[in-house]
Amino acid sequence: MTGILWRSVWVAGFLFLQVNAGYGRQSACGDPLSLWQDRPVKHAIVDFVRQVIDPAGAAYVPPGDRIVTVDMDGTLLCERPLSVGMVFAESLLEELAEAPQLQGRQPFDAARQDRLKALRKEHFELFFGMSGAGLEEDAVRQKVRNLARQVRHPRFDRPYRELFYLPMLQLIAYLVQNDFTVYVLSGSDQTVVRTLCAERPELASLPPARFIGTLVALDVDYGDHGPVFYRLARELEPVNLRKGKALNILYRIGQSPIVAIGNSAGDCDMLAATFGSGYPATLRLLLRHDDGEREYDYAQTEKPGSHGENPGLCSAQAGSDILSISMKDDFRQIFEPSVR
Amino acid sequence: MTGILWRSVWVAGFLFLQVNAGYGRQSACGDPLSLWQDRPVKHAIVDFVRQVIDPAGAAYVPPGDRIVTVDMDGTLLCERPLSVGMVFAESLLEELAEAPQLQGRQPFDAARQDRLKALRKEHFELFFGMSGAGLEEDAVRQKVRNLARQVRHPRFDRPYRELFYLPMLQLIAYLVQNDFTVYVLSGSDQTVVRTLCAERPELASLPPARFIGTLVALDVDYGDHGPVFYRLARELEPVNLRKGKALNILYRIGQSPIVAIGNSAGDCDMLAATFGSGYPATLRLLLRHDDGEREYDYAQTEKPGSHGENPGLCSAQAGSDILSISMKDDFRQIFEPSVR
Repeated sequence: MTGILWRSVWVAGFLFLQVNAGYGRQSACGDPLSLWQDRPVKHAIVDFVRQVIDPAGAAYVPPGDRIVTVDMDGTLLCERPLSVGMVFAESLLEELAEAPQLQGRQPFDAARQDRLKALRKEHFELFFGMSGAGLEEDAVRQKVRNLARQVRHPRFDRPYRELFYLPMLQLIAYLVQNDFTVYVLSGSDQTVVRTLCAERPELASLPPARFIGTLVALDVDYGDHGPVFYRLARELEPVNLRKGKALNILYRIGQSPIVAIGNSAGDCDMLAATFGSGYPATLRLLLRHDDGEREYDYAQTEKPGSHGENPGLCSAQAGSDILSISMKDDFRQIFEPSVR
Repeated sequence: MTGILWRSVWVAGFLFLQVNAGYGRQSACGDPLSLWQDRPVKHAIVDFVRQVIDPAGAAYVPPGDRIVTVDMDGTLLCERPLSVGMVFAESLLEELAEAPQLQGRQPFDAARQDRLKALRKEHFELFFGMSGAGLEEDAVRQKVRNLARQVRHPRFDRPYRELFYLPMLQLIAYLVQNDFTVYVLSGSDQTVVRTLCAERPELASLPPARFIGTLVALDVDYGDHGPVFYRLARELEPVNLRKGKALNILYRIGQSPIVAIGNSAGDCDMLAATFGSGYPATLRLLLRHDDGEREYDYAQTEKPGSHGENPGLCSAQAGSDILSISMKDDFRQIFEPSVR
């Protein structure tokens, strides 16, 4: 009995090595995408990774060129009813709105008059620069940390840092394990992006340089304890959405992604950037919010042509072979189990 | 005889292992800074690296925080009589100067009238954006490669890509070998920086994201073969000099360097950024051009207070403990031996 048992272990180990030998680190043990349903999207992702890491295959990509760009709001975490960056910006605007020197100026007047919602639809990116005017960057980081840990989502009643989609974090870990270089590209204020993502241990292997967002103009002074950065009341070009994402891929990364993952029209240029890599196999993914029960069903609340319409959403810029991830059908689980 | 020989090899190997055991990868074999004279600066660099990589020491810095920022023009390669970026920009301006639609506009008028020298002193950064207006980025890269390989330096009569300082490239290799993350920060056009540095095999381990320069505004179109970027006639903020270097360290890296290496007043803010790291041991280096025979002696051609004055150059922002590297005394060799 013991002999048979050991032989089985040995055989199982041998088979495990055999299976893994051709695919490098494709899966260290168990199912690396265990939170994904056994459906075509998961198979396509695993097949793609196997192909590009197989040095003998025609689709091989050397590790240094395995660039991944992932959107944040609505792709890595819940963005409804409002993205964390916008929740943060509006909380700062409301703090500042009563200051006498800001009377008569937007967006502070809107904040005082409860009209931010209207203004944000037109000029959301304007909020980032204006909202923190004069604040030191260290103070901004501290305020974002407090928000992520303490402020609770109006519907799910849990802190914002618990609103990351676990299957997406697992996908990033799987790609990192296979020597992909992952960048998070978000339209939100870059300091919010870095600070919020730093709350997740699953993203701890990504240094701050891998988080690219919209930049707020800063100035710097030199004190006794090193440089002190403080915010000016405007953003820098380019705002990191749509064309801005393609531009920042060139400016900040300098290599085209072979995998791009988004969820909105703001991500289409990033998906199109994969065609610049020159590699035969590249992957474009759009997350579809179609789960009104566990998260949101965008199609039910929006006019045709907006978020709900994916995967057709990006076909103009990024072609037709975009894979659509259904939150309803592809995610076994979305958020971590509630502690209460 | 054979026995003694083998025993000697064994003892030597054992001693080698002993010497290296405490210092990780501090020196794989031989002298990693063989092109540096045996003088205080070299000793200080080696001592610093030993300290920060020793996990048992008080000055230990984990690999992920071993950030290095190095200037390019005048620090990694010769910048006299003109930096490669400026040589490139002026060659483009001269190509464009006769175009009818550019008559009456600067800097094209200056180019046509041989007055670029006067204009460049006031507005050198303006040259980068204007010079390539309308060009595709691929074309810019090809032109920079041609320049680096074919155009010869007026005094040294060798292509610009052979004007890198070998001891500095060796220093970068030594830091990389010890798990430092090296960024090149240059005031020059970022595309020039990346393309020029890609000519050097010693820098091949640094991906494009590690080269940070002044950005030219771009637009993007999507063709059949992926995105096509073309140049607009202006730069983006911040110009990557002085305060711009400190700002880009935050924007682009998000971590403070523990080593910063420059050669001019444009680098002082970058040197000061080391004080933001919070680590007890950090290193600030300024290269002094004091070798009129092998390169240039800046002090002989300039008024007091400019480049020649280092190491006092950056004391206002970056304190007094800046190490000055003398090209004359510290570099055994500067350029690679001429092939002719």
